[in-house]
Amino acid sequence: MDLLTEEALALELATVPDWAHVDGSIRRTVTRADFRAALLYVGVVAYLAEEANHHPDILIRWNKVTLTLSTHSAGGLTATDFTLARTIDALT
Amino acid sequence: MDLLTEEALALELATVPDWAHVDGSIRRTVTRADFRAALLYVGVVAYLAEEANHHPDILIRWNKVTLTLSTHSAGGLTATDFTLARTIDALT
Repeated sequence: MDLLTEEALALELATVPDWAHVDGSIRRTVTRADFRAALLYVGVVAYLAEEANHHPDILIRWNKVTLTLSTHSAGGLTATDFTLARTIDALT
Repeated sequence: MDLLTEEALALELATVPDWAHVDGSIRRTVTRADFRAALLYVGVVAYLAEEANHHPDILIRWNKVTLTLSTHSAGGLTATDFTLARTIDALT
């Protein structure tokens, strides 16, 4: 995957308003009812990540799950990151 | 739970050599074969955390899982953190 151009990046970012653009990555924090619910959510994200063969960093802090997407092999954001972000958004 | 004294903290730290003492918390990173294996490990940790009613921050980065334990209500490290750390260590 190629890094997105500035123009392409702007267009992609507009499609994922719940994700923040942070240092060559995009990040979203989702809050669930409690730790168990957060874990169940992580299970869904993990399934989608395996299907996409693309894995966000996942931070669980009790009922909060922070997902960070970047394409390490490309050194930044690619279309793959946004495709997975939208897939995750569709289920939350 | 009360914060540990300096002396008690030193004794507890000696029991968990795989955990680093970082800013009022203890932290361990475990490496598994791949993302799926890391997720299975997180499932075990989550079960133990629920049993203990004490929840580490859990960061999953593909095959690496970083656990950070602290007692937020006490503002630092208590015996509860070390009890859970040892329980986690017993299963890894």
